[in-house]
Amino acid sequence: MNNAVGTLVSSANVNGTAVYGRDGSHIGTIDHLMIDKLSGKVAYAVMGFGGFLGMGEEHMPVPWNALSYDTAMGGFVTDLTEDQVSGAPARSEGWDRDRDWETRTYDYYGIPPYWI
Amino acid sequence: MNNAVGTLVSSANVNGTAVYGRDGSHIGTIDHLMIDKLSGKVAYAVMGFGGFLGMGEEHMPVPWNALSYDTAMGGFVTDLTEDQVSGAPARSEGWDRDRDWETRTYDYYGIPPYWI
Repeated sequence: MNNAVGTLVSSANVNGTAVYGRDGSHIGTIDHLMIDKLSGKVAYAVMGFGGFLGMGEEHMPVPWNALSYDTAMGGFVTDLTEDQVSGAPARSEGWDRDRDWETRTYDYYGIPPYWI
Repeated sequence: MNNAVGTLVSSANVNGTAVYGRDGSHIGTIDHLMIDKLSGKVAYAVMGFGGFLGMGEEHMPVPWNALSYDTAMGGFVTDLTEDQVSGAPARSEGWDRDRDWETRTYDYYGIPPYWI
């Protein structure tokens, strides 16, 4: 039996959590997660960034595996930069049902896709 | 390349979603999800049930795999009964970091644990 302590986090604590770059700069805020119902895996953290006071804010889906939680920062830390996120493949209308867009996005970030 | 259409669901649409038994009875409502950060998998749907107008409501963590989404019902459907859920192993204080409680709970529901 594996008795290792788990690392469970509540979805209620994830939404609204800040995302920081490695240099400590604030890149954005998690708006919500997209969960793959088949595998039960988190596929994307949809990050709001840019804009001002919520106006003009863009929502960008980022692979969950690109984020790690830093208890000291009280937020997620990522190796991604704001430029990388804003340069990601533009979302198609039905991006969450578009395996081609998903493939290009995971390729772009260089992260193994959640569906394999 | 796998071009199958994904089945992504937003965490924002999961919280507050009703859970129905196979007979259509309303068992409870999803309050939040618990996500295993290591694997990126949803470990539990924490269901509020019982009580009246939010008073005396109990929160019971149910394995995510015990739920399936029914678009016609607009909610989750489960083979579990209210009695099964209320008879599940009592939560320890730090249930979300207690692998023994987790093992007993997944055993109780007869579902393969998310951490293996």
